[in-house]
Amino acid sequence: MTTREPARSRIQRKQDVLTRLEKDEDAWVATASATGEPHLMPLSFVWERDSFLMCTRRTNPTLRNVESGDGRVQLTLGHTRDVVHITGTATIVPTADLPSSSGDAFAAKVIWDPRNSDPSYTYFRVVPHRIQAWREANEIADRTLMTDGTWLI
Amino acid sequence: MTTREPARSRIQRKQDVLTRLEKDEDAWVATASATGEPHLMPLSFVWERDSFLMCTRRTNPTLRNVESGDGRVQLTLGHTRDVVHITGTATIVPTADLPSSSGDAFAAKVIWDPRNSDPSYTYFRVVPHRIQAWREANEIADRTLMTDGTWLI
Repeated sequence: MTTREPARSRIQRKQDVLTRLEKDEDAWVATASATGEPHLMPLSFVWERDSFLMCTRRTNPTLRNVESGDGRVQLTLGHTRDVVHITGTATIVPTADLPSSSGDAFAAKVIWDPRNSDPSYTYFRVVPHRIQAWREANEIADRTLMTDGTWLI
Repeated sequence: MTTREPARSRIQRKQDVLTRLEKDEDAWVATASATGEPHLMPLSFVWERDSFLMCTRRTNPTLRNVESGDGRVQLTLGHTRDVVHITGTATIVPTADLPSSSGDAFAAKVIWDPRNSDPSYTYFRVVPHRIQAWREANEIADRTLMTDGTWLI
């Protein structure tokens, strides 16, 4: 709760978020079952223009929750003292519908190609509705950078 | 999905988990609403023998979810490539019931004393039922170190 650095401007935060979206390898992915059981798992991602491309087994709780509910997810990037917090909607992408360029980008970044793996591995996209970014208590104000899918700055 | 280091023994993983429980400052805390809306937030903690002591505003989604449901939470410590994954149950601790030694330990570690802050700040404990630890794909096997609240090693 102590503050070690001055608060960043919202413009700086958006730039920092865009850098994380491009360069970070993994996100923490929180989903919930229809009966209110939380699930938290790290998954690798590729950021493609306006959505996260991710992949896990269709039988894992993350995708079971996406399929049984309305796809609501929360993602975080970064560390607990340098948070990018995303609320969005996840949708399964059948491998047959995935552009080869997207599959290639995923394989190149993650150094693993689900298209050559067990068929239970299933791609999904997360479209962000809200993005917030904060480091310490002095950045809680002005933390919201996107609402309703639109960047505010 | 590539593997850079040999898999640790389960004994080594337990030791690494205990070190994180003692020394880490924050956990990622995933909860869910009764209607299946996930919530993910970083919170500071103190590990006290067999539970996490944490604190947030009672009006925040984390504690609203704990109060409206049966307290199921998932926590993670560490980074996405060095995961400690905890499934547990959260219970609110009224400040009047908190031992002063616990309040003092929290204040000393977090450098903030909720007892001197807005009364909406509310302590809660998370008791782990299951603890898993893994770094890379080669540690997915043998990742479970605790089940039903009992260390397996």
